[in-house]
Amino acid sequence: MKTMGLTDLRLVDPRRFPDPEADARATGAVDVLKSARISDSLPEALAGAIFVVALSARRRDLGPPIGQPREMVARLLAQAEQGEVALVFGNETVGLTNEEIQQCQAAVTIPANPEFSSLNLGAAVQVLCYEIRMAALAGLASLADVTVTPASSRMATHDEVEGMYAHFEAVMTETGFLNPALPGRLLPKLRRLFSRTRLERDEINILRGILAATQSPTGHARGKPPAT
Amino acid sequence: MKTMGLTDLRLVDPRRFPDPEADARATGAVDVLKSARISDSLPEALAGAIFVVALSARRRDLGPPIGQPREMVARLLAQAEQGEVALVFGNETVGLTNEEIQQCQAAVTIPANPEFSSLNLGAAVQVLCYEIRMAALAGLASLADVTVTPASSRMATHDEVEGMYAHFEAVMTETGFLNPALPGRLLPKLRRLFSRTRLERDEINILRGILAATQSPTGHARGKPPAT
Repeated sequence: MKTMGLTDLRLVDPRRFPDPEADARATGAVDVLKSARISDSLPEALAGAIFVVALSARRRDLGPPIGQPREMVARLLAQAEQGEVALVFGNETVGLTNEEIQQCQAAVTIPANPEFSSLNLGAAVQVLCYEIRMAALAGLASLADVTVTPASSRMATHDEVEGMYAHFEAVMTETGFLNPALPGRLLPKLRRLFSRTRLERDEINILRGILAATQSPTGHARGKPPAT
Repeated sequence: MKTMGLTDLRLVDPRRFPDPEADARATGAVDVLKSARISDSLPEALAGAIFVVALSARRRDLGPPIGQPREMVARLLAQAEQGEVALVFGNETVGLTNEEIQQCQAAVTIPANPEFSSLNLGAAVQVLCYEIRMAALAGLASLADVTVTPASSRMATHDEVEGMYAHFEAVMTETGFLNPALPGRLLPKLRRLFSRTRLERDEINILRGILAATQSPTGHARGKPPAT
């Protein structure tokens, strides 16, 4: 990532960190490791980001909209004019879980040879960072065929969006609409719906206002009144 | 390279081959190593190629024209419609020599962070193979803004072009125009001139015909008659 001019590395729950082997492999880029931010969870690492793209090796049933690197990098750079953006990679062996990918607004797949599609993590990171540098150098972000919400309307941050989903889930559970023991695909479908657009803070306030209004003062939704 | 659908690997004078460590690192792509062709020299590896692009980490004084990956890959694919093309990489530690780069018709540089531009070899190969796959998938080769000589005129192969340079050098030496002990930049400048275009076999025949015509039947150029 440093070869392509990127420096902001965030590591979620690393097995060992700092680690002498990582330092040795990072020849010349140890500064990136030294300034990496460590988080316990993906939501914590992404707090503050207004647009998050996950690398996905395969198409998922209910994930966010998926695109190719050039297209998704253009969207990423266009959004970067409004706030922090992020690329999310899974680890070398298992990649990202469905749950992790559903926390992202978009996914990107490198169109590899179907007969041998397993790029290793370093190679995938290099390809995406390279596309970012090429797009940034060419100023493609401003030319990209993407709808950018005017800067006057504040984009919602990742934690604000996640807060909204949590609010939805609470209300759905309280109403009995969602059985937490058998959640099915309700939540992924909800995420898919909202991930097709970039939510503004105002919109989230409205949605959460609606959700809150359905809930009784004791925190239960009206659909299923608390036992008395 | 296999992840991007490429299979034709040629190795020039490898230190050890086959090598168990290489096999271990090639997990899933050992077939590419097994079918790799081994050559003693770069000209031998490139014999038959009509267009050859070298990876160069830096601008060279007298090298062939240099471009960015997307542009050079488009040229490479456009030429691939006429015959074999090749990408040439140096080894991890020293890259390619000036002499090796001058055997290529074009050079490509990955526009890395000037403060930390040292992509490792695997990363550079991945980036270029990725660009090849993207261009091939998009059919960009046919759209590229490059002049493709009609297929009816046979492009010269690498060995034919090298034969021409050797012929030039022989004639220049024989005439005393070139002092082999102090060659200066004559040959690189000659290569630079011809590398700006794709030579056809007919053109090489003409040039070599001219060279041959300057030489006496005993193999000496007319400019400096053999001592009698």
